[in-house]
Amino acid sequence: MENNLLSTINNPSDLRKLSENQLPQLAKELREFIIDIISQKEGHLGASLGVIELTIALHYVFNTPEDLLIWDVGHQAYGHKILTERKSLFHTNRDLNGISGFPKRSESIYDSFGVGHSSTSISAALGMAMASLLKNETEKQHIAVIGDASIASGMAFEGLNHAGVTNANLLVILNDNAIGIDPSVGALKNYLTSVKEGRNPKQNNIIKSLNFDYSGPIDGHDLPKLLSELRRLQNVKGPKFLHIITTKGKGLQLAEEDQVKYHAPGKFEAKTGKIHPKNEEGLPPKFQDVFGHTLVTLAKENSRIVGITPAMPSGSSMKYMMEALPERAFDVGIAEQHAVTLSAGMATQGMIVFCNIYSTFLQRAYDQVIHDVALQNLPVIFCLDRAGLVGEDGATHHGVFDIAYLSCIPNLIIAAPLNEIELRNMMYTAQLGLHQPIAIRYPRGRGEIIDWQQPFEKIEIGKARVLKKGSKIAFLSTGTIGTNVTKAILLCKQPEAVGHFHFPFIKPLDHTTLETICKEYEKIITIEDGSIIGGFGSHINHYVLEKKYAITVVNLGIPDTFIEQGSVPELQHICQIDVTNITNQINLLL
Amino acid sequence: MENNLLSTINNPSDLRKLSENQLPQLAKELREFIIDIISQKEGHLGASLGVIELTIALHYVFNTPEDLLIWDVGHQAYGHKILTERKSLFHTNRDLNGISGFPKRSESIYDSFGVGHSSTSISAALGMAMASLLKNETEKQHIAVIGDASIASGMAFEGLNHAGVTNANLLVILNDNAIGIDPSVGALKNYLTSVKEGRNPKQNNIIKSLNFDYSGPIDGHDLPKLLSELRRLQNVKGPKFLHIITTKGKGLQLAEEDQVKYHAPGKFEAKTGKIHPKNEEGLPPKFQDVFGHTLVTLAKENSRIVGITPAMPSGSSMKYMMEALPERAFDVGIAEQHAVTLSAGMATQGMIVFCNIYSTFLQRAYDQVIHDVALQNLPVIFCLDRAGLVGEDGATHHGVFDIAYLSCIPNLIIAAPLNEIELRNMMYTAQLGLHQPIAIRYPRGRGEIIDWQQPFEKIEIGKARVLKKGSKIAFLSTGTIGTNVTKAILLCKQPEAVGHFHFPFIKPLDHTTLETICKEYEKIITIEDGSIIGGFGSHINHYVLEKKYAITVVNLGIPDTFIEQGSVPELQHICQIDVTNITNQINLLL
Repeated sequence: MENNLLSTINNPSDLRKLSENQLPQLAKELREFIIDIISQKEGHLGASLGVIELTIALHYVFNTPEDLLIWDVGHQAYGHKILTERKSLFHTNRDLNGISGFPKRSESIYDSFGVGHSSTSISAALGMAMASLLKNETEKQHIAVIGDASIASGMAFEGLNHAGVTNANLLVILNDNAIGIDPSVGALKNYLTSVKEGRNPKQNNIIKSLNFDYSGPIDGHDLPKLLSELRRLQNVKGPKFLHIITTKGKGLQLAEEDQVKYHAPGKFEAKTGKIHPKNEEGLPPKFQDVFGHTLVTLAKENSRIVGITPAMPSGSSMKYMMEALPERAFDVGIAEQHAVTLSAGMATQGMIVFCNIYSTFLQRAYDQVIHDVALQNLPVIFCLDRAGLVGEDGATHHGVFDIAYLSCIPNLIIAAPLNEIELRNMMYTAQLGLHQPIAIRYPRGRGEIIDWQQPFEKIEIGKARVLKKGSKIAFLSTGTIGTNVTKAILLCKQPEAVGHFHFPFIKPLDHTTLETICKEYEKIITIEDGSIIGGFGSHINHYVLEKKYAITVVNLGIPDTFIEQGSVPELQHICQIDVTNITNQINLLL
Repeated sequence: MENNLLSTINNPSDLRKLSENQLPQLAKELREFIIDIISQKEGHLGASLGVIELTIALHYVFNTPEDLLIWDVGHQAYGHKILTERKSLFHTNRDLNGISGFPKRSESIYDSFGVGHSSTSISAALGMAMASLLKNETEKQHIAVIGDASIASGMAFEGLNHAGVTNANLLVILNDNAIGIDPSVGALKNYLTSVKEGRNPKQNNIIKSLNFDYSGPIDGHDLPKLLSELRRLQNVKGPKFLHIITTKGKGLQLAEEDQVKYHAPGKFEAKTGKIHPKNEEGLPPKFQDVFGHTLVTLAKENSRIVGITPAMPSGSSMKYMMEALPERAFDVGIAEQHAVTLSAGMATQGMIVFCNIYSTFLQRAYDQVIHDVALQNLPVIFCLDRAGLVGEDGATHHGVFDIAYLSCIPNLIIAAPLNEIELRNMMYTAQLGLHQPIAIRYPRGRGEIIDWQQPFEKIEIGKARVLKKGSKIAFLSTGTIGTNVTKAILLCKQPEAVGHFHFPFIKPLDHTTLETICKEYEKIITIEDGSIIGGFGSHINHYVLEKKYAITVVNLGIPDTFIEQGSVPELQHICQIDVTNITNQINLLL
């Protein structure tokens, strides 16, 4: 497009040269720019389309980057990135060495705070605003933009509760579109809806009760209204709150109509928004679907089974149970802490709870796993999706710490299946009646087995499996990374010398098999799709030293650094747990 | 006392045989019973005195243990324990093998859910209530009693937010006494105060907005009113909320007057409540006071220093800075998640933040440490009080997991001083300007050095110290447990053969010193006041195996089980990290 406005804008200073009546045209161009690139590249779509007007208005009114702007979660920050010096890089979005899919401090001075997990923006912006007060920078503005799904998380409430008793110059903007990745849930959401619909008496206002200057709700796609309201708020001192109503996917009809699908739609036709159905025939299943379908099968047979997801019915495939058995499957919203202790409460009453949380998000409920579940030895079944490297979502989302942070917890079984069939059988085994909690970790994406729906088989807890015998090197793997090992052994210079042992259980550890290995092999290599520090390998190390075996041990896994974004194969290569590096490692030891 | 009512009561069935007009007399006796024992035994006092009438009313009206009652945190549950079959055991409160200071499922059928950390009760009770719905147990009642400090924590909000959209038979009782351990803070507290004082328009009600049936506020010491209100609520379906006003320490004048001191007053005169000031002259300081006083000294010299505590101004001794420099020291309430991300936000603006959190409570902010601090490499200074075994508070409160759960986090320095002077110098060093975050862990209680206020000295990050040279065994310790090692070496059969190396830094690890040790010694013993799994010892194991040293390594620390209550020496003995066991271990290896 020639002579367009967007082409004149590299940063917000350029934006501020436009006249107000040019801004709707800019909004149109910005939407087209995002749609053009994301339709080919894949990425998050709907959230950014919904805040185009807000993004323009914020950078137009406020003096960014001096004024500090934080986008909660960051799914919605593409427009922000494009207007802040990253237009020409936007096609590298989520690529290895490209720009991040989320705001990131090291990437731009306009990204005041790195985000990815939800509900951090109010606390972070308040910290900045309190610092400005202490530094006597009274003109500096501090803005947190947070969605209605994120503000329902406990952490956001903690931030509001503190902010309300400060005189910090904080503006919280609630971007209320009634949806996170899946539709928002909870009493607060119903309350916000009543406010939007004018059904709520003006006097009853949760936000005002927390001592915020509340304004709204206003139409978040109405640029003149946004501009005037933001200008007014610029001069209001203390904590203030603007409630705006937006439509996720705004400007692309199909995205507005199916907001869940268009959160991150994959490739689509830029003009129409149409998604060409992928031919998935003959592909192995996603692990999340193995979980989702297996849960339905088991729950149909066992009325004590309950499913819980904190805001990930689609991502975890809990939606299948929510559809099939709605009275026993619950989306509790972005509330991991609550999800875990709710599970514990149910377990005390004899329910068999499958609590599905992404590995990276279980970090949000760490204390609840220790204090409410493991300490009371309640047999909650945690299914940790997205364990290991997750790819393009990058450093905020890799599930690489779970083995380390869960291993020190007494009573907890930690399991990592090799493949779809084993995941299925672990779920089956867990619901037969464990007397302690279990965490089953499995990765993002697809497995390698087409015929995964085999008859259920009970698994022996704590038992390792010999996948292949060898003579010199014993390769000990846990989880699906074992498939890389299988391939590497075939490629190494002496396959017959390498044994392969799969440990479905990191805890309890199979000491019997370990003893045999230590006696029969000269060298051990351990591997896991997780942090080397505190991981599966560290358990093996402890065993070997405790039993005083004079055997060489090499630990492979995620090194002690935050791993950035990229495809999973690229990141496995960086971490040296791809087939090539594993092969080299074997050859080195042979 | 003869013919008293309390002596006739072993359990709630006995209680229900009393007439209503006998209950005030029972309340009086129950208070006296608690005061008599706690005045001699030590323990938590004020919270239980404040809910005596509520405790009696709940067990009188509801059909416990069939109806499920959860006391949030559990500081207030002494009356509950005494009325539920534990009167004759109450003198063993908090002792090794005695009854727990908190409700505990394994101790009594009346303890529906184990507690200790705050704000779990709503989620747990909701889980139970939802389970009852699924089991079609429609008459069962589920009651969570939560204080105004605890309900301000994000997790409690998550529970309320979910409960409001269920039809679960849940009664949340807000025990509003305007104080946790320290006075409550935050906007919600101000709101509740306005409700109490009738300053809030009836229409504005946060709780009603969350779809609860709200009633109150009523006087929580008025037994007839409590009984009638609880009876009414028994027949209200769905989520309901009763707001009661109580006085912490009720019935003991001095405790009512100084509620912070009488939260856990130590020994006192039962009749008057008078506490005889302890002679602390000549005693080494508490570590918390070394932190508190040092922080004031440093902050007076450096205007960029800020202090943050989540609801522990007294316990952490942050109160000294709050008194001396109130504009830079903040109690944010029971909001560990917020505290950490607030710290991160401040750090982005160049503030030097000392964020003090008990080790066990940092579990509540684990994701924020990873995602908001370490990933962005912000130089927040975490001071983890109550690290290691804490004694009588027991399994819920031991700070034994921190080394394990922090070790896998990239960028984070993990430090554990040997003594007061080193803690002080670590704090000094950290505020000189680190370029990464640091966690400094130190224990509950007193150190061993009287003259701890030495001139500040900068510490080299990542450097170990030789405390004593030896010839055969190298003893590697981190933290204050090293003092046990020093004593044990003197007692062992060949002190000159044992070297002692103190590692003030678990991460980064001093590889240079480790190399020397591995070359010069035959055997290594590691010790820490923390989980063996994933702990300091596991780092040593990894180094030894990676470098292929043929050296024996023995790891001492907290075993893979939840450690119960007892005195610290008793628990150290159980964990075999007391002087005697360490001595034996050395002798075994010599």
